[in-house]
Amino acid sequence: MTLLRAIEPSAVPLYSQVRERLRERIVDGTYAPHARLPSEHEIGALLKVSRITVRQALGDLQKEGVIVKVPGKGTFVATNRPSQELARLEGFGEAMARKGHRIVNRVVKHVQVDAPPDVAARLRLAPGTPVTAIHRVRRLDHAPVSFEITYVPTTIGERLRGENLAERDIFLILEADYGIALGHADVRIDAINADATLADALCVERGAALLRIERLTWTADGVPLDFEYLYVRGEAFQYALRLPRHP
Amino acid sequence: MTLLRAIEPSAVPLYSQVRERLRERIVDGTYAPHARLPSEHEIGALLKVSRITVRQALGDLQKEGVIVKVPGKGTFVATNRPSQELARLEGFGEAMARKGHRIVNRVVKHVQVDAPPDVAARLRLAPGTPVTAIHRVRRLDHAPVSFEITYVPTTIGERLRGENLAERDIFLILEADYGIALGHADVRIDAINADATLADALCVERGAALLRIERLTWTADGVPLDFEYLYVRGEAFQYALRLPRHP
Repeated sequence: MTLLRAIEPSAVPLYSQVRERLRERIVDGTYAPHARLPSEHEIGALLKVSRITVRQALGDLQKEGVIVKVPGKGTFVATNRPSQELARLEGFGEAMARKGHRIVNRVVKHVQVDAPPDVAARLRLAPGTPVTAIHRVRRLDHAPVSFEITYVPTTIGERLRGENLAERDIFLILEADYGIALGHADVRIDAINADATLADALCVERGAALLRIERLTWTADGVPLDFEYLYVRGEAFQYALRLPRHP
Repeated sequence: MTLLRAIEPSAVPLYSQVRERLRERIVDGTYAPHARLPSEHEIGALLKVSRITVRQALGDLQKEGVIVKVPGKGTFVATNRPSQELARLEGFGEAMARKGHRIVNRVVKHVQVDAPPDVAARLRLAPGTPVTAIHRVRRLDHAPVSFEITYVPTTIGERLRGENLAERDIFLILEADYGIALGHADVRIDAINADATLADALCVERGAALLRIERLTWTADGVPLDFEYLYVRGEAFQYALRLPRHP
């Protein structure tokens, strides 16, 4: 078996053919997750195409998240895309830690604001009631993956100032430290283009597609406690779930 | 109570203030879903701002999907955003019909292709095995909302040529007409920017944020039967689900 099928005369652009040859071998496991790909020079020699063509093919695969270039080290097959199962309510940190990822958060802002109408409606407060807004960038294995804005009542928000929000999920602090049992969350998912603020926070280009999650978390007693907007890099992360036909 | 609070001197641009005044009244239900808003002229007179400013404010709310302009009729508060619950495996048509929406599909392509590696891997076929690819634009209440590419084995794909795919879900045809019991689907959700093809199909700008759903549907017997990519307009539709903390 040759590692890469030869390029054949075709109307398909050369770099697309090179890209698909590489993809075949990644999909079939010849180049496994974490494996180092041959160099651009080697791939060019194997397929009898220029290094420019190889670079273009690799660029496409990188944009798709299929491979990762590590400066000075080479090009590697991406691990399976990080994903979170939507089966139960879990903090991002706890869900990712279980899979062996390291999550570190940067608290960008921790302020008291007048509840905007959408937030007030969700938390069942009069519009303009003071609430605490916590803005965090969450990094997964050192890369920023989501920007989260959390709104909670000020009694909880002020208390959270003393906590290690860089390393701990708010859910865990609420439950383990504050003794508040969480019940469930109502989640809505759509997609938006990154504005300048989100693009900066997530190190993506302005306009990049982001998943937007609205999540309203209720206590076990039926009080809406925590309303969040999560903006998640669309190309770097996936949500996964299994839907039964007859639950 | 006045319908709209007066605009006050502020560093915030006038049109933003007008937009937020209108939003307050939509969120609090003064202007309910389906209600007709006052005309641009009337809003301008109420708030003592120019019609241009009102138009800019309305433009923002329209982009957000909060209001809908109907040429010759006026501006209406949007119904709650169409959404689909992710609680069980359902076709888009059956889920939306239950909520009173009308779904019509346009079959763009119904062809036999060599299974691309990602499709072959999902359907457990050798790469290059012929499969049927069905490309459909799905319209919700007359507006295109998703572009779907369905891959099925050719035995099923050829048989589907005779069916009313404009009005019926493939899931329903498989179950009701072909007697194939469906078991569950594995779903993955991320977000991408629309390329030229998707932008055309969905009547959005190139680069617009889309939800991308990968859905692999299994028969009740455990055979992977139907692999799909669904590209859904990110600003026009939402997926909703409820996550229990302790299932």
